[in-house]
Amino acid sequence: MDKPSPTTRDRLVNSAVFLFWDRGFAGTSMSDLLAHSDVNSGSFYHFFESKEALLREVLDWYIRGLRPYIAEPAFQAADEPIARIFAILAGYRERILQTNFRYGCPIGRLALEIDPENQPAHQLIAQNFKNWVGVVCECLDQVAHRMPKGTDLDAVATYVLVIMEGGVMLSRSYGSVEPFDRAVSQLREHFRLLLAPASKLASRPGRAGSKKQTARR
Amino acid sequence: MDKPSPTTRDRLVNSAVFLFWDRGFAGTSMSDLLAHSDVNSGSFYHFFESKEALLREVLDWYIRGLRPYIAEPAFQAADEPIARIFAILAGYRERILQTNFRYGCPIGRLALEIDPENQPAHQLIAQNFKNWVGVVCECLDQVAHRMPKGTDLDAVATYVLVIMEGGVMLSRSYGSVEPFDRAVSQLREHFRLLLAPASKLASRPGRAGSKKQTARR
Repeated sequence: MDKPSPTTRDRLVNSAVFLFWDRGFAGTSMSDLLAHSDVNSGSFYHFFESKEALLREVLDWYIRGLRPYIAEPAFQAADEPIARIFAILAGYRERILQTNFRYGCPIGRLALEIDPENQPAHQLIAQNFKNWVGVVCECLDQVAHRMPKGTDLDAVATYVLVIMEGGVMLSRSYGSVEPFDRAVSQLREHFRLLLAPASKLASRPGRAGSKKQTARR
Repeated sequence: MDKPSPTTRDRLVNSAVFLFWDRGFAGTSMSDLLAHSDVNSGSFYHFFESKEALLREVLDWYIRGLRPYIAEPAFQAADEPIARIFAILAGYRERILQTNFRYGCPIGRLALEIDPENQPAHQLIAQNFKNWVGVVCECLDQVAHRMPKGTDLDAVATYVLVIMEGGVMLSRSYGSVEPFDRAVSQLREHFRLLLAPASKLASRPGRAGSKKQTARR
């Protein structure tokens, strides 16, 4: 067979994952990609018709990486569902610290950079977000009985993602993990208020004038 | 005097504000800037030593714009302090809708794009964020007496900014205002839980095992 070795393709994807994260999509030139991956232009076009096609592959790579790199380590670190959500967030905290505050979520960065006309890329970005939200939803499902009746779990999970993304963003410009920590600690308070322990149920009165009156706490 | 007219400088700044928002910093070439502002290269370098210097001017422009363009319209739309915070957020919702979901917060975009080595720019980005947080803090100060004792108002205000930034980001890739709306409605719930009306104070028991036991609600 006359195809270049599969490792060439992998090298291109790995380089693109790093460079799009480090320099952005527009900030990564074709020659940056070829030099970083040590691949020649002919081999590139054997695998990808354009930088945009490589971007889609990178976004697919992140979709495939969600379970092994984001969800599973957090699920192994904690058993309790809410603790698992905060373990996912702690993973991002680690990334902020390990990169000396350079860290920006690669998907978040691309969400803000890629032109909205590039719908195929934005659909894959949104799919990354939705799968992340789905992982948090799995955790929330297990404590749904402790939440106010009618709580929209998907909305709560979206909220968690929004806080991760915003927290990472601020920490990058502050050069400090403090904004991330502050946001996460407020989220912790949010869950504390939302999920008061079952043992307290009897001692807390319902509140009038709110559909949350029926909340099981 | 032999300086070019001040309007030349303004045109450069206005074009950079638009282009850095629309295409990003790396995605805006020097020739894009000159063509969009109808300024020649010599005039550019009369005012700015580099694209980076123009970026700093743009970030200063946003700092100056916070009160007139973000805070004041919201403060005129509502009197009650928490309503003012949600009026600021409603302003971003409008921007998301008006731009047909293309909107990305220009400061957030630059926070994730600009190289962390570019400290002068990141300090100005952080200053933008801090001033925004300061505006929200002004509102929170007025309802501090309704919050649990010891609540870190700056942390709550940072939380609001984090949610705005993350919500705008997700809405851009989803092509829908829904993630922003969901995040804001959870934030509303957070304030509802944090700021239970004074009239309910007497009916709610303190909770053991928490320093929030002393919360005035």
